[in-house]
Formats: sequence, structure tokens, C-alpha cells
Amino acid sequence: MTMLYHLSNLFPFAPWSVFKYVTFRSAGAAVTALLLSLLLGPRIIAWLRDLRFRQDYRPKDVGTTGDATAAAADLAKRGTPTMGGILIVGVLDVTVLLWAQWNAQVLLTALSLIVLAGLGFYDDWLKVSRQSNAGSSSRLKLMVQIALALGIALYLWRLPSTESLITDVQVPFLKNPLLVGVPAAGIQITMLTIVGSSNAVNLTDGMDGLATGCTLITATVLVVMTYVAGNAVFARYLLVPHVPGASELTVVCAALIGASLGFLWFNCHPAEVFMGDTGSLALGGALGIMAVLIHQPLVLPIAGGVFVAEAASVMLQVGWFKFTRRRYGTGRRVLLMSPLHHHFRKLGWPESKIVTRFYIVAILCAVCALSTLKIR
Amino acid sequence: MTMLYHLSNLFPFAPWSVFKYVTFRSAGAAVTALLLSLLLGPRIIAWLRDLRFRQDYRPKDVGTTGDATAAAADLAKRGTPTMGGILIVGVLDVTVLLWAQWNAQVLLTALSLIVLAGLGFYDDWLKVSRQSNAGSSSRLKLMVQIALALGIALYLWRLPSTESLITDVQVPFLKNPLLVGVPAAGIQITMLTIVGSSNAVNLTDGMDGLATGCTLITATVLVVMTYVAGNAVFARYLLVPHVPGASELTVVCAALIGASLGFLWFNCHPAEVFMGDTGSLALGGALGIMAVLIHQPLVLPIAGGVFVAEAASVMLQVGWFKFTRRRYGTGRRVLLMSPLHHHFRKLGWPESKIVTRFYIVAILCAVCALSTLKIR
Repeated sequence: MTMLYHLSNLFPFAPWSVFKYVTFRSAGAAVTALLLSLLLGPRIIAWLRDLRFRQDYRPKDVGTTGDATAAAADLAKRGTPTMGGILIVGVLDVTVLLWAQWNAQVLLTALSLIVLAGLGFYDDWLKVSRQSNAGSSSRLKLMVQIALALGIALYLWRLPSTESLITDVQVPFLKNPLLVGVPAAGIQITMLTIVGSSNAVNLTDGMDGLATGCTLITATVLVVMTYVAGNAVFARYLLVPHVPGASELTVVCAALIGASLGFLWFNCHPAEVFMGDTGSLALGGALGIMAVLIHQPLVLPIAGGVFVAEAASVMLQVGWFKFTRRRYGTGRRVLLMSPLHHHFRKLGWPESKIVTRFYIVAILCAVCALSTLKIR
Repeated sequence: MTMLYHLSNLFPFAPWSVFKYVTFRSAGAAVTALLLSLLLGPRIIAWLRDLRFRQDYRPKDVGTTGDATAAAADLAKRGTPTMGGILIVGVLDVTVLLWAQWNAQVLLTALSLIVLAGLGFYDDWLKVSRQSNAGSSSRLKLMVQIALALGIALYLWRLPSTESLITDVQVPFLKNPLLVGVPAAGIQITMLTIVGSSNAVNLTDGMDGLATGCTLITATVLVVMTYVAGNAVFARYLLVPHVPGASELTVVCAALIGASLGFLWFNCHPAEVFMGDTGSLALGGALGIMAVLIHQPLVLPIAGGVFVAEAASVMLQVGWFKFTRRRYGTGRRVLLMSPLHHHFRKLGWPESKIVTRFYIVAILCAVCALSTLKIR
């Protein structure tokens, strides 16, 4: 249970009363996570470097080996320690322990973070120890993700208080649920959201600061969304589903923002550390789970438009390659390289420029997602 | 007057009604300004390049000529057109014309933007045409800024509706004004805020994307602050001064964010264009004026902590240099170089890293500034 929150109940005079406010605790969580990351960052990075947790950075693509320019850029990234995600996830969980009230939503998010970070860690570990980029079989990775997502969906469906999250399908821009009492649709949407966001952030993580910054921006949308969902007055006014207790997820989102900002301090170009699958699978999963918990899974693809574009670019590239190979004998490509950010690198954009421009698009997506609150 | 707003009065059926909402118009203004900047950017940049509006980029410092590293970095920036601020200010004013209701506050901000952009343009022009970094005499620049700020302060003082902005001094964290009926203090704070913020942003503008991004982050605080100040219910709940009409400044801030984001697209490292004094004097002035108009001038130094640190670093460096020269015969320095961002470059931090880290500090300052809303 939240130490600071209960302290405020023990000493109910004025200066402590601020700990009752979600807004104050959110700001506190963000600042705590940021400062903790800055404090622990150098030690964790030095430790990861000592442990030789270095991943030979190689872009993920299908059927290409990368040209000379890409190879040269990659060479500069060799020796940079990966698995920095343990810094983000560790700081995040400690901060949440300190600042949030531990309700079912917070616990579910925190536990999923640990499960996905563990899965990512295992994957990163295999890549490092085998000195290959293959990692664990992607089939195993997907199976664990699907199992986790299915477990969450079934758990929410079984509880009377959260049953409607699964049985009803809420669509942006519509006041009322599009479908009511269709658990099959709800379970599929829930699983797709969690597995999809986890993998989409994973695919986006291929340039200094890219996944970190975009996660940050998407989490900012969720800060607002969870706050509105958790506040009966605002939720009724804006005609979004009211989810009691969701305002504690605001504290989690704020901690996520703080931890990402702190990690970005070291991860920004030229990066001193990468988050690895440890970070990207966990952060993506957390975004998906929180969107499901406030009954807004379909707003997430808008808020995280960059992640969707990155994932879609890979599916398009792979799909078209396989289709044309079957049809014409040789595989053809739509993009110069996938995921999308590598396409722009092949076009000659400098890495720092691609990253900043992706941030700008992410902010535009965030504004669009927030406007769904008002337009109903 | 706002075309889109009046359209919604002419056709008062459902789809148009969204134009009555400040939140919707703010989102619209931000997106419009962003898209306009992206659309016009390449043409304006090409035009500036053709006109040979190129400033030999040289860091602002006192008594140093810059070492070999700095000189090499500067060389890479030669030929990059400056005066990109006309893109920001132009897009901003067009967007405000389209989306905001033109009340006194909006007009005052829009006009000041044009005056300061004109002053900056004159300065940039002199630098380019004389091929020197001196520009107009800093005394003249300061005189125009002071005249503008004094004019605004006196104008606000004379109007009964805005008189209290000048006569009362509102301090963060306090529920009631610290001083009441002290126009001399109010006028000085108003002038210091406007002149100070204009010059502080100007000093910060020395690395790709630095001033643009920090302006963006500070403007985000003002989006929230102006919205709260303009909404009677929120202002009473949060115990901040209610300023009728201030919510139109929310639209201006949102347009400012959109225009800055659009400019950042081209201004991010490696920059294709610099904003020049045209942009920095105007943007800084606009931040100051809006803070004054919502009776929160003393929150601005918190929200724009990076700008304050940059300005303070110059004052410290110059002051200490002059003091030690008088005292010991030779001038000594506190920082390796001022403004502050050059100090870190001398320490060996890559430019893109300095810029991202300054953004992170700016976001931290923004969170602190927003928390003043709750802690009273």
C-alpha cells in the first residue's frame, strides 16, 4: 500500500493533505521516477557494460542484409549496452509502490510489466550470450504474450466490476458502446491491443531515443484519459466510461513518463544505452493494458499512431515480399527497408532528424487521440 | 473576427457546435499551424536561401573568440538560412485569425508578436547585410522592447477590466495576491517578464531545435494555465485569478505549439533553417505577454526554467568577468562559455544530447510550474 498516501491519513493536517490528490501524486511520481533514473542510470549502465550485455545492433528487416551506410552507422552502435529496460521497469515499479494506491488495476499493470520485462530480458540475454540477433524464437515470445493477454482478458471478464470492459466494445467518437454483450469481440480486441502494442513498441525500438520518446508521448495521452475515466464528474461530462479506481493508473502513467524521461537522458542520440526487448515489450504492454483497463483500447491505435505505422510497415513489407515471391518468383519490396524508420534512413535522412520528426508525428497523433474525448 | 466561430453561430446544428468549444478550437489551431508550417516551410526556406539571408553562425559569448572545436562545428552551420522566425510568426498569426475570437488579449499578443518579429527581422537583416554578428545595437533593441513592455503595462493599468493585473501582485503557491494596489511593483514585474522572456529565449537560441523545443514545452504550460484562468469554475476551484476571455489565449498557445512543432520539423538537428532573432524575440515576448495577461507572470520563470538558466548564465559570466577584471586586472570566467548550452559543448557533450537533455529539464520545469496550480 502507498506509504505516502497512508501517511496523509495518519496526519490529516494541511501540509499532508496534498497526498490525497491524484494530481499531486502523479506529479510526485513523475519527478521521483525521473530523479531515480538519473541517479541510478550511470551505475546501471556501467554494470550492464561490465556484464558485457552488449547487443550487436543490427536493424530488423526481412531478406536484406543492410547496405554500406547502414553498416557503418551500425558499427558506431556496437558496444553500447542493451537491456536498459530494467532501469525503466525497476524505477517504474518502485515509484508506483511509493506513490500509487495499490488497487487491482495498478497491480495488474505492475505485474504485467514484470512478466513482459522478464520475457524481453530472456530474449536479450539469448541475443547477447549467443552473440546473434535471433534471440528466443519469435513463436515462443508471441505465445507468452498471447497467454498473458488472454489471462488478463479472462480475469477482467470474470470479475463483475470489470466485466463490461470485455463484454462491451467502446469505439472512439461514439457516445454509447458499439457492441454490448459480445465477450468474444471484447476478448479479441483486448488481446490484440496488448500483444499488438507490446510488439509495435518493440519494432519501433531501433533508433536512439525513438521508442522512449514515442512511449512518453503516448503515455501523456493516457495520463489524461485515465484521469478522466477515474473521475465521475469528468467522465460523465465527456461521455466516456467511468472506471472507479482508474485515477490510480494516472499515477502509473505519470511514473512511466518520468521513468522514460530519465531513461531518455542516457538513451538520446548518441545513445549510451538501449532499452532492448526488456524495455520495449514491457512498455508497449503497459500502454496496451492501461488502455484496456479504462475501456479505451481503440483510442490507443490513434494515440500510438507511430507504433501502428511501424508495425504496419513491417507487415506490409513482409506480406508484399511473400506475395510477390509466390506470384513472380522474386520477392519485391514496398519500402526501401522496414520498419519504417529505416526506410527514411535509406532515403538519407540523418538519424536525429528521423527521431525528432517521428516525435512530431507522435504529438500530432496524441492531439488527435485527445480530441476523441471532446468529439462524441 | 473568427470565421469558424461565426460559422458555427450561423449554422447552429450539431456538427458545427464543436467550434464553440475552446478545446476543439485549440486542437484545430495546433493542427492547422503544424500543417501550414509543413506546407509552407520548404518554400520559405528556399526563398530565404535565395535571398542569401544567411547568418554566419557564431556563438554569443563575452570576450572569447571560440576554440577550434567550436569553430569547426560552426563551419558546418554556415550557409544555413536564418530568419525562419517569419515562418513561425506568419503561420501563428494566420492560424489565430482563423481559430480564435479576437478579443483584446488576443490582439495585444498578436500585435506584440509582429512588433518583436519586426525588431528581430531588422536585427537579423543588419547581421546578414553587414556580414557581421553585431546586428543592431543591443541598446536600441532593448529600448524598443522596454517601450513595448511599458506600453502594454500602462494599457492594462488604464483599462478598468484589466487594472488588477498591474495593481496586484500574484505569487505562485499563495491563494491571495501578495501585494494589492501597488502599480509600481506591477509595472516593473510586467516589464521584466516581457523584456526578460524575450531576451532569454533569444539567448537560448544557439543550437538546433533548442529554443524551438523549449518554447514548445513552456507554451504547453500556458495552454493549461490560460484555459484554467479563462474558465470560471476551474479558476475558482484551483484558487487562481479568473480572467474572462483568457481562454482565447489557449487557442493562441495551441497555435504557438503547432507552429513551433512545424518549425522544429526543419529546425531539428541538423537544422535546415534557424529562427533568428525574428523568431526568438517574438516567441519569448509572446510567452511573457500571455503570462502577464493571465496574472501569472511569476509562474513563467518556473515554467521557462531553462530560459532563466540560460539568461542567468550570461549575466553570471559577464558580471564575474567584469568584476574580476576590475579587481584582479584579468577577467575570469565561471563557465567554460556562456550561454549555458555552450558550456556543455565545451565539456564535450554532443549537440543533439545537450538539446534533448535541456528538453528533459524543461519538461521537469513545466511539471513544477503546473503543480503550482494545485499547491495553494
